[in-house]
Amino acid sequence: MGSAKKTPSTSVDSFVLTFTGIVADVHSGATRAAGPREPAFRRGTMLANLRQVSLVSTEELATIASRMGLSRLDPAWLAANIAIEGAGPISQLPRGTIIRFPSGASLYVSDLNSPCKAAANLIREHARLTKEQISPFVPHAVGRRGLVAFVYAQGRVTSGDAIEFLFAQPELPNS
Amino acid sequence: MGSAKKTPSTSVDSFVLTFTGIVADVHSGATRAAGPREPAFRRGTMLANLRQVSLVSTEELATIASRMGLSRLDPAWLAANIAIEGAGPISQLPRGTIIRFPSGASLYVSDLNSPCKAAANLIREHARLTKEQISPFVPHAVGRRGLVAFVYAQGRVTSGDAIEFLFAQPELPNS
Repeated sequence: MGSAKKTPSTSVDSFVLTFTGIVADVHSGATRAAGPREPAFRRGTMLANLRQVSLVSTEELATIASRMGLSRLDPAWLAANIAIEGAGPISQLPRGTIIRFPSGASLYVSDLNSPCKAAANLIREHARLTKEQISPFVPHAVGRRGLVAFVYAQGRVTSGDAIEFLFAQPELPNS
Repeated sequence: MGSAKKTPSTSVDSFVLTFTGIVADVHSGATRAAGPREPAFRRGTMLANLRQVSLVSTEELATIASRMGLSRLDPAWLAANIAIEGAGPISQLPRGTIIRFPSGASLYVSDLNSPCKAAANLIREHARLTKEQISPFVPHAVGRRGLVAFVYAQGRVTSGDAIEFLFAQPELPNS
């Protein structure tokens, strides 16, 4: 688990989720200003912060690394808050999925994360890659870059926690 | 447009969306207590309020009414905050869809709304129906009862506003 207070992340054994995000994390806050990820909104527009917490899958990172010819990609290099291991790919989980921790702390999945050049540059720096080595990151990370979420229920998250996925149920009209 | 400060709703020409919902509406607030709609959470657990605003489609209400043998169902009878006309069915819009108003005020669709007995009782009272007349409400309203949403961007909503749907884009991994 990483706390992205500064880039690069520092790994912590435990942290608390409050309704504004991870305490002291740079992405916490009830609101955030619209940026390049929200092209439909004027830059700087205040939006509800749906990107409080970022999650990656160690299996997806392994796939990206392998396709880039790297031995590994450390979740901290991507400034991810939470790395999930053993659940397989997570990036295509539908919006509205709730990820719950044993304490009751829960995250509402608001979006998949898109690979950006900033993440690529961080990785490049950490892994000491050349421009040629980092350039395949974005194409291979599309759809595998993990999720962003916001806090649905407060509580503590601890390294090694078993997690639970609560899937939103469809409710179709009868014909 | 209705303000659900009290049940039954009162119709207003305009209201303001803030990050906690519709000012003075009973459903506003940054958080709400888990209830029967959140069976996975212990009753009373504080949750982020994803149900700040409820929306119905006049076309879907007409379908429900027609199947119940009624001439109409007034959005106010369901204590809906916003009735959308001319967009067709809305209840199956995916979670994560953003509904934007001309002021910039925007709602993030968090869930479809499930028909409940409380709504049925309200309708029954307003339309002066018998038990037999109201009993088909729930089965015909499943999947047509509209949406719940929370405020993504603040601003004013005015009766007659043209609305825009911003759909979340898929981002699939390359094979």
